[in-house]
Amino acid sequence: MTHHHRAGPLFTDLYELTMAAGYFAHRVFDTATFSLYIRDVYSTRSFFVAAGLEQVLDELAGFRFSDDEMNYLKTTGRFSADFLDFLEQLRFSGDVYAIPEGTVFFANEPVLEVTAPIIEAQLLETFLLNTVGFQTMIASKAARCIHAAAGRPLIDFSLRRTQGQDAGLNVARSTFIAGFTATSNVLAGKIYGIPISGTMAHSYVGAFDSERDAFWAYSETFPDHSIFLIDTYDTLEGAKNAVAVAKEMEKKGHTLIGVRLDSGDTVSLSQGVRKILDDAGLSDVKIFASSGFDEFKIEKVVSEGARIDAFGVGTKVGVSADAPFVDVVYKMVHFKDRDVRKLSLGKVTLAGEKQVFRKINSRGYFTEDIIGVRDELILDGEPLLEKVMENGNVLRPHPTLDEIRKRFELNFSRLDEKYKLIHDAAVYPVKRSRRLEKLQ
Amino acid sequence: MTHHHRAGPLFTDLYELTMAAGYFAHRVFDTATFSLYIRDVYSTRSFFVAAGLEQVLDELAGFRFSDDEMNYLKTTGRFSADFLDFLEQLRFSGDVYAIPEGTVFFANEPVLEVTAPIIEAQLLETFLLNTVGFQTMIASKAARCIHAAAGRPLIDFSLRRTQGQDAGLNVARSTFIAGFTATSNVLAGKIYGIPISGTMAHSYVGAFDSERDAFWAYSETFPDHSIFLIDTYDTLEGAKNAVAVAKEMEKKGHTLIGVRLDSGDTVSLSQGVRKILDDAGLSDVKIFASSGFDEFKIEKVVSEGARIDAFGVGTKVGVSADAPFVDVVYKMVHFKDRDVRKLSLGKVTLAGEKQVFRKINSRGYFTEDIIGVRDELILDGEPLLEKVMENGNVLRPHPTLDEIRKRFELNFSRLDEKYKLIHDAAVYPVKRSRRLEKLQ
Repeated sequence: MTHHHRAGPLFTDLYELTMAAGYFAHRVFDTATFSLYIRDVYSTRSFFVAAGLEQVLDELAGFRFSDDEMNYLKTTGRFSADFLDFLEQLRFSGDVYAIPEGTVFFANEPVLEVTAPIIEAQLLETFLLNTVGFQTMIASKAARCIHAAAGRPLIDFSLRRTQGQDAGLNVARSTFIAGFTATSNVLAGKIYGIPISGTMAHSYVGAFDSERDAFWAYSETFPDHSIFLIDTYDTLEGAKNAVAVAKEMEKKGHTLIGVRLDSGDTVSLSQGVRKILDDAGLSDVKIFASSGFDEFKIEKVVSEGARIDAFGVGTKVGVSADAPFVDVVYKMVHFKDRDVRKLSLGKVTLAGEKQVFRKINSRGYFTEDIIGVRDELILDGEPLLEKVMENGNVLRPHPTLDEIRKRFELNFSRLDEKYKLIHDAAVYPVKRSRRLEKLQ
Repeated sequence: MTHHHRAGPLFTDLYELTMAAGYFAHRVFDTATFSLYIRDVYSTRSFFVAAGLEQVLDELAGFRFSDDEMNYLKTTGRFSADFLDFLEQLRFSGDVYAIPEGTVFFANEPVLEVTAPIIEAQLLETFLLNTVGFQTMIASKAARCIHAAAGRPLIDFSLRRTQGQDAGLNVARSTFIAGFTATSNVLAGKIYGIPISGTMAHSYVGAFDSERDAFWAYSETFPDHSIFLIDTYDTLEGAKNAVAVAKEMEKKGHTLIGVRLDSGDTVSLSQGVRKILDDAGLSDVKIFASSGFDEFKIEKVVSEGARIDAFGVGTKVGVSADAPFVDVVYKMVHFKDRDVRKLSLGKVTLAGEKQVFRKINSRGYFTEDIIGVRDELILDGEPLLEKVMENGNVLRPHPTLDEIRKRFELNFSRLDEKYKLIHDAAVYPVKRSRRLEKLQ
């Protein structure tokens, strides 16, 4: 179980249903293959991290129109009784090939392909684009932060400003896949089993007569889980108050985990705070930082010598602020017995059912990908898309979140540094097989 | 009923719960007032449109921890049995003042204030910021599009690339509040009663032997709801095919509603298509345009003479792409018997429970707002915040979506043109009352 809220078949653009009605009226029931991929036209990312598949599989396996949903469609007055009867019986009966969650992939590579009677395949479009597009975008953004943080733990703090509720849940899950260690999101902790993290806000400090009182009170309630927020009044004075309380905690056999900075100049303040802690013999007390961090700010403060042990990463990652959407599309590539290709200004869709083959060198690093035809064999190329559904049945149990996370970790370790750079990353070579070229 | 999916009290950052546990352990049960507002530090918007309140009221009225949620909190091992018992019984018992949905407001103005025992008020923070922040951001973006479109209808096409599922629903609702006429989102049609709109995609045209066959087949299924997508192969040829089919439809007593352009140069293509339609005597057939529209692109093509009758507005509005988050905060402004003020770098919170008073001139236009103390009286100033909850009870039925929409329409008509400009809008005057100044 992935415990996602089921979207249901009405989570769709109306035109998917009107097209379905059109196909139904003209008895167009032939099999089509649609390919989901990210166009590189506007790409601001040198790589992507696949996410969203497990939710997709749950949705497809449970695809059906409820009575309630059918009743609504009737009230629209747009659809024939025959077509409505047809919809009521409709289940997803097709095949799905997909790149597993946590895998690194690149623009133009199919990340998911659906082969099914055209009406079924068409009706899934909006849901698939939304689900895979958003979660992949966030996992990819998170991976960039992981790279910038160079081993420092990252915690998802984004819930208050994600674009809605399941965005908050999926940000927690997608950032965790890409190596974040915890989330502030309690519901994500419950649903996905992600470690949860959090201590206090400025309002807590302000609710006591003094900062020291607030720290002391907190340490009494959470003697082994205390991280003090030290910038409510003056950060360096806050560090001294934290030291005083930490010393009292020590007498009772407890240890302060850390202090958190949430404003001001991270570099100089973290250095000052580190000195105050070290001078007091508290070199094990960690310094956390939050407020406006993303891969760009993390890289900047780390390169400038900030003494930060872990970052709380919020809004800018939770909405992928520098690139808040990906140009993800779902295009028909095969219909009846022909491969289908669409040409329009600046937008070419490659015809045919595909596979992505990855070449790996002797040191284990990815060297290039080849987009080929699904049934071809490319020697020394590892196929990335797996058959995950057949005739509407899911072919394997859900991997655990830890398994997905490990897949990402392994993948990311095999991607050369130059492709991960935050600025001016190299373009990873993605080629086409001769058979695929010939098909076009 | 607003039919929102209930988030539940675990939709929160962990620190809200740990702070609550800290207050509980130290018997801090005093009443606090928190104020929710958008900081102007990073503001890219000259005005905002309030949205999200009705969902907030449903959530607060139903606030309680379920058995399932309590069980999860127990497994975290962080909370005392006493505190967990307390949470299990907890209901929201406070008062809420808020600016109604659809109202135009400005940065720094409180849009919602909660007065409740500090634990209750604190636990709501994450949910309130997420809900009001996101929906207000989208309604505000949509209002900018409405302004740019200068009377042309706008339709929400964003579902495939919104940041998750309830984002898609709330984008449909928030854009409808701000004057959009319809949405492609079928689920939003069902839940909110918003008119739904949509016809065909390129894949539909591609599934038939010719473009003309595809149009003809569609017109047979939807003789009175046809809008043909004419850019699959060549837009001007597509217009001619649409004309041919429209003529056949006329013979059967039906009328083609319109054609849609989804790529290429909107200005020149729309002029060419208009001429083809007009020359064929089809001057009533409308031209729709989609693909990458937001307030900036709408304003541009309109000013350049595009002959577009209505726009499908998608991704860039659905994620508020140019400003994908607002700097919305929820700050304690009153606690026990004192007004609370927080000062940190560049971030000042105004102490005290507040009211916003709006001055209106003899022609009905808004002239200035004055942020005052909640219980003061400002002559000729209309108070914007209404008391919507008292002791945990909602004080009035939900307004209908049409009522909210009308409130927006009236508000927007009273906001001078200069404050609505897409580029370089004037700054609307927001002042502070003498009593509020004195309090600081």
